[in-house]
Amino acid sequence: MSRRVAVALVHHPVLGREGEILTTTLTNLDVHDIARSARTYGLAAFYVVHPLESQQLVAARIVEHWVEGAGGRRIPDRAEALRVLRVVPTIEAAAADFSREAGEVELWTTAARPSGDTTSYAAARPLLEREGPPVLILFGTGWGLAPAVLQSATRRLEPIAAARDAGFNHLSVRAACAITLDRLFG
Amino acid sequence: MSRRVAVALVHHPVLGREGEILTTTLTNLDVHDIARSARTYGLAAFYVVHPLESQQLVAARIVEHWVEGAGGRRIPDRAEALRVLRVVPTIEAAAADFSREAGEVELWTTAARPSGDTTSYAAARPLLEREGPPVLILFGTGWGLAPAVLQSATRRLEPIAAARDAGFNHLSVRAACAITLDRLFG
Repeated sequence: MSRRVAVALVHHPVLGREGEILTTTLTNLDVHDIARSARTYGLAAFYVVHPLESQQLVAARIVEHWVEGAGGRRIPDRAEALRVLRVVPTIEAAAADFSREAGEVELWTTAARPSGDTTSYAAARPLLEREGPPVLILFGTGWGLAPAVLQSATRRLEPIAAARDAGFNHLSVRAACAITLDRLFG
Repeated sequence: MSRRVAVALVHHPVLGREGEILTTTLTNLDVHDIARSARTYGLAAFYVVHPLESQQLVAARIVEHWVEGAGGRRIPDRAEALRVLRVVPTIEAAAADFSREAGEVELWTTAARPSGDTTSYAAARPLLEREGPPVLILFGTGWGLAPAVLQSATRRLEPIAAARDAGFNHLSVRAACAITLDRLFG
């Protein structure tokens, strides 16, 4: 890839089952899986976005255990994966941090539901191979990113199952992130 | 897809960190994530392969909670995903069960490490679109499927990161399964 790309796992603002806006709790395996996928596909960073300090501390402790502590001594590959992780309170903070090292970022969103104006993976892939501003790809926990986040994005990637007619599209965020990165960079 | 395809998550025989053969414990999120991916890509079944009765019971209880119990009433989509799950003691039992409904199966394996004679995803995809015997795709937990399993397979799929040179290929089995299904059926 030519453009610098990072991913962010967003715990707020996301949707709940009834369409309400809420904050989800951190899931340990999300952190591990997405760090491993991000590292495998050569991304610049993986942001864990959580507004609560107590949950930021949990994420920071996972990183510490695996990058500097006993976990990383036992499984060095895991240390290498979790080294790409950064904990931030908001999407804006993730964008600001990534902009500092790479210039003004574009926010791209992912969603399981179709929305009006999306970019296909086939169209997105060459956009990332050309020179251009860095891209921060957002993944929502819970029932997906809040509508305001989708609306403010530079680009919305099409749903993964857009072309299929199985009538069922409830991938975990861990699986959706892996598939997205593979389609863009695999 | 034209051929009937199922996946199996194998907890024995798999490799440990030092290359020894061992049995891994069941991971709750493996069961959920792979069921959701299998259902999204329209697979016929998802086998959880575990030799220990106590671990088979754990898997059966997850299914029961989500398909018939309180979990499924709360999140009906999850019930639909976990309905494809079947718990068996061995790879042979999974193959025998799947053969009963679909005829003699081919075993295909996946691995993170390259081996001598593999099939690319580009070559595998049209094979699944043509008529042919059903296919059971095996995924190893731990550090991957035991060599004897790879050797006995009809076909070995190439490592996901075969074409990349990032020098890091440590996807979770949840992510690897999602990417494999997307490459074959997405």
